Amino acid sequence: MRDVFIVGVGQTPVSKETDMGGRHRAAAAVKAALADAGVEPERVGALYVGNMMSGLLANQQQLGGLIADYAGLLGIEALTVEAACASGGAAARAGYVAVAGGAHEVVVICGIEQMTHVDRDTVTRALATAADQELEGGGGESFLSLNAQLMRAYMEKYGVRAEDFAPFAVTAHRNAVTNPNALLRREIDVDGYLASRVVADPIRVFDASPICDGSAAIVLASAGAAATLARGARVQIAASAAATAPLALSRRPDPLKLDAVEASTERALAQAGVQRRELDLFELHDAYTIMSILTLESAGFAARGTGARLAAEGRLALDGDLPIATFGGLKARGHPVGATGCYQLVEAYLQLTEAGGANQVRHAELALVQNIGGTGATVVSHVLRRVA
Amino acid sequence: MRDVFIVGVGQTPVSKETDMGGRHRAAAAVKAALADAGVEPERVGALYVGNMMSGLLANQQQLGGLIADYAGLLGIEALTVEAACASGGAAARAGYVAVAGGAHEVVVICGIEQMTHVDRDTVTRALATAADQELEGGGGESFLSLNAQLMRAYMEKYGVRAEDFAPFAVTAHRNAVTNPNALLRREIDVDGYLASRVVADPIRVFDASPICDGSAAIVLASAGAAATLARGARVQIAASAAATAPLALSRRPDPLKLDAVEASTERALAQAGVQRRELDLFELHDAYTIMSILTLESAGFAARGTGARLAAEGRLALDGDLPIATFGGLKARGHPVGATGCYQLVEAYLQLTEAGGANQVRHAELALVQNIGGTGATVVSHVLRRVA
Repeated sequence: MRDVFIVGVGQTPVSKETDMGGRHRAAAAVKAALADAGVEPERVGALYVGNMMSGLLANQQQLGGLIADYAGLLGIEALTVEAACASGGAAARAGYVAVAGGAHEVVVICGIEQMTHVDRDTVTRALATAADQELEGGGGESFLSLNAQLMRAYMEKYGVRAEDFAPFAVTAHRNAVTNPNALLRREIDVDGYLASRVVADPIRVFDASPICDGSAAIVLASAGAAATLARGARVQIAASAAATAPLALSRRPDPLKLDAVEASTERALAQAGVQRRELDLFELHDAYTIMSILTLESAGFAARGTGARLAAEGRLALDGDLPIATFGGLKARGHPVGATGCYQLVEAYLQLTEAGGANQVRHAELALVQNIGGTGATVVSHVLRRVA
Repeated sequence: MRDVFIVGVGQTPVSKETDMGGRHRAAAAVKAALADAGVEPERVGALYVGNMMSGLLANQQQLGGLIADYAGLLGIEALTVEAACASGGAAARAGYVAVAGGAHEVVVICGIEQMTHVDRDTVTRALATAADQELEGGGGESFLSLNAQLMRAYMEKYGVRAEDFAPFAVTAHRNAVTNPNALLRREIDVDGYLASRVVADPIRVFDASPICDGSAAIVLASAGAAATLARGARVQIAASAAATAPLALSRRPDPLKLDAVEASTERALAQAGVQRRELDLFELHDAYTIMSILTLESAGFAARGTGARLAAEGRLALDGDLPIATFGGLKARGHPVGATGCYQLVEAYLQLTEAGGANQVRHAELALVQNIGGTGATVVSHVLRRVA
């Protein structure tokens, strides 16, 4: 398969109660990415949209054709990819496959989600459609309650305390302060974390990513197409890999082990020919602090039961050896569900092109980017490599 | 790109008020297709699910991972592709791109939709999410009312009468009689058509495809993988092409011209190197009789205003020169929305492998298969060619 490059990115500020309709926000992200890449619309072969809940929350499906129209890409191939909270990453994977395989020279990926125009109960019910409806959602489980189960089980099994989770939230908030596109641009500390409200024992407000709106986009190109652009090829997608696990926690042999995270990470690192210690940053899926810990362990960066130590030791901060959530992550940049995977890729691209500003990770050349659907049912991993 | 072959198919009977949950029906279709192909689950690289309304009607998203689990494909790459009523065809296109480009050797495509466990109003609202919510759905337009607009405008512009639409329904119903998987297995005649209830003037019950449940699946393989199977490569996907148009009729310069049908058809025929007259059958998207007529004209098989004549002259029957709806089509086999594109591909495969039974089109070697989202906003076309 051919080499694939990210040649441009676009993002809209993550927000709440925006008065901009989803189609217009997505079109803005796509246009920003095309302008950043210096790509004319007529060169775009396809648009892949990542979205989870537009049908449920805005009565609007068929976003591919809709956004193509409003973004000035009338007539092109367009479709929507859905894998719950991993929809953005899954759309990027579909776009990668199309360019790598030779179906298109240039494609655009756009992640979009608007969640704050409806009430919280409606959002909660919509998010629960990512869980197994028969075994979990239909019985009243929410995304929050499922993550609370995981967190409680983890704390009991490994004797971990509430304050051990705090450094993940503290790090994410610190990094968001200097990201103009982040939703929660304020620092918090461990005392603030511990004082925050418990929303589903043991999950506190500061363990969870916020409900919000957002759209981000990336432009992918083959080497040939990238060479015709002013900036050329700067960031390569060195690997793209997806894996799945049962949706329901009760169908997994060990719910505290995220098998799809392990499989997807292993495949991506093998494809890129990269060792874990070579990675300069890891944009992981910190929808909940427990998800960060389980990810670090299942992806092979920490032994079982020890993931929290990485944060406590400062190794996950911007100047650590494995920075995560470098622009605030899901926790503080925000988690506009179907858009999140695209924000992660945009942010990794900014790091690898030295465009990170105050959030720049020094000498960033290799990034692992991982988007998770549900409580670990769909996992899409990409390795990005700086090439110029 | 590499040659891609359909090496196995599976379908469940289209039905109403089934007591089989969607995941189980989809798993049955996938397992049937794998058994038909003689492919062991461990050889499958990815599962692409086509679905439109599971989130809206069953509170269940993330079908990729869910169906992979229940179909015995635990752990593999899996995602859902959505393009309204073209979701099944779009999923097949994603699978084609993956195999043609070298990402996988064997993939499974599964279309699934269950619509009859909820009341009719709920289904009507869910179907309207395929339309433009701001310009159409939000104002009370339904899929039926939009197609009624098109049919009325067509009748007025070209002086076409109600009875001119009848042959499409009559042909579809006749072909469904001998398809054990069809929903409406009974003949109708022109008098019956004219006597049927007008549901949205000028659309009669017999102009519209029925609300129903269904799942169908196909297995795609590279030439190398196909060669290892008992049956080898029998049907090639000679072309795969998608195109879009604005969702809203009001944003199209000429709503009676389906631009995405034209573009998608032209691209597919060019890719396959096939002339229209060489085609032995055309599985078109007859969700409404007016959609069949507009398709035949926009795809270049009839001059504007003359599409109905093809049916009246018997040219679209099984023994005509361009058979359509050879197993009953959307009208009589049924239109389980996100599954329809997969049923169409299954049926074309059966024709090209001489497995059509009483519905066999003689000497069928080339088929055009076309799946449409909305009133023509997303169109996915495949050309299938018999190779053995």
